[in-house]
Amino acid sequence: LIRDITGFSNPIVKRIRGLREKKIRQRDGHFLAEGLRILTEARTAGILPDTLVLSEDGNKDGRADQGLRRALIDETLAAGGEVIRTTPDILAKMSGKDNPQTVLGVYPDCDVALGDIDRTRAPIWFVAQAMRDPGNLGTLLRIGDATGAGGVILVDDCVDPFSVETVRASMGALFTQSIVRTDWNSFLAWLRQGDAQLVGTSLRATQDYQEPRYHAPTFLLIGNEARGLPESYEDACDTLVKIPMLGRADSLNASVAAAVMAYEVVNQRKATNR
Amino acid sequence: LIRDITGFSNPIVKRIRGLREKKIRQRDGHFLAEGLRILTEARTAGILPDTLVLSEDGNKDGRADQGLRRALIDETLAAGGEVIRTTPDILAKMSGKDNPQTVLGVYPDCDVALGDIDRTRAPIWFVAQAMRDPGNLGTLLRIGDATGAGGVILVDDCVDPFSVETVRASMGALFTQSIVRTDWNSFLAWLRQGDAQLVGTSLRATQDYQEPRYHAPTFLLIGNEARGLPESYEDACDTLVKIPMLGRADSLNASVAAAVMAYEVVNQRKATNR
Repeated sequence: LIRDITGFSNPIVKRIRGLREKKIRQRDGHFLAEGLRILTEARTAGILPDTLVLSEDGNKDGRADQGLRRALIDETLAAGGEVIRTTPDILAKMSGKDNPQTVLGVYPDCDVALGDIDRTRAPIWFVAQAMRDPGNLGTLLRIGDATGAGGVILVDDCVDPFSVETVRASMGALFTQSIVRTDWNSFLAWLRQGDAQLVGTSLRATQDYQEPRYHAPTFLLIGNEARGLPESYEDACDTLVKIPMLGRADSLNASVAAAVMAYEVVNQRKATNR
Repeated sequence: LIRDITGFSNPIVKRIRGLREKKIRQRDGHFLAEGLRILTEARTAGILPDTLVLSEDGNKDGRADQGLRRALIDETLAAGGEVIRTTPDILAKMSGKDNPQTVLGVYPDCDVALGDIDRTRAPIWFVAQAMRDPGNLGTLLRIGDATGAGGVILVDDCVDPFSVETVRASMGALFTQSIVRTDWNSFLAWLRQGDAQLVGTSLRATQDYQEPRYHAPTFLLIGNEARGLPESYEDACDTLVKIPMLGRADSLNASVAAAVMAYEVVNQRKATNR
């Protein structure tokens, strides 16, 4: 059954709008994803929203998009979720945007515990240390998807992986990558219980990032945007490398550096398999 | 002589505040850069502000920063620029931020004409097509600095390279990279007047980005964030390549793709010189 909401003062409207605020979102334990593309990414990864909200505007969509909307509705209902139909105005209020998407989903936080990670599942894992920018984290998740990484392990005080900005910047990769929130000591203890190559990029490093051989699972450690990695974190790495900096700047954007590193790992694996 | 401004209603305060708005900024032909680090990047590149604004707060800076402030003041005055001292509150009003930097500079737009570019000056040039996101453009400029590129040629309807957001995201690389604003046909005509390898990334490409040999000057063409390159632009390329996408997504963030491509060019040159 699809439920209609026609009033701005409906408590569901208020709750969903509240999920844009960090404190409310974290207490609620749910997050928002917007747009047919991102929700379809989630569905394809086997993840359905607790609550699916659609505006009548969507009826103007093309036939392919109509089919994707239908699949979202059917599968959300079949999984016991709630489907809500509302007006474009009310959807705009929930989404807080002038030009909202015509579909929005409420999902439970989907991070997992370190102990539930099977590190052999993927050749690359990212470890983000005190990453503060939601755009960087979203981009990192997207890079993880593109390079066949398993996910992102967040250590220290990182940005909320389920904020609206991160979800949007990830373009749905949030749903294909495992996300772990932990602290440095717990991570290190877990890391050393199995096979792992912990790789950091550092201004102190003497070898170029193309010199070492990377072996799976490779854990690529990415430092805070402004301060880089603490020295003791660098010391814990198996391999420290530097990315050549040919100009005046001494560092790359955190997610850009992660991409350069991850593609080197991908390229080495490709060369080995040739 | 250093001038003091103590009133919020001073016309200079109003003008500088106005430079945050796109239309006013473009009519004025000047842009804002904030922060001792970015202004020092500019000074080191030989670029001084028309107007330098400092807040008294800066007197609490460490000795090294005091020296950098002093150098900015002296060189701005020597070059005939204006130096203004004001209160942290008034600086905050100009900068529109709660925690403003203690120094701010007003610079004339520093883009150059295509015809003034010496393409042999650098092995890599970026060509951004309809790039819409200021963060992407700023990051691209920073990547350009890191990979020894000459600059960014903006074609079609790109974001303002001198917006506050772009300047900030570039971390000062804006002052070390040449910036050209032109259209596609003018660019192509100029390109074919000299040696050039125009390289595009495309979903249609069959060869991996590591396969071709890149030769200087390499022009890396980066498509719009949402739509990629128009097909006719791809057809104009000398070389079309694809970056491997191992997951579900079909593209990388535009600046991330630019970094992966640029480092491949850097690495090939490094290998040749070895």
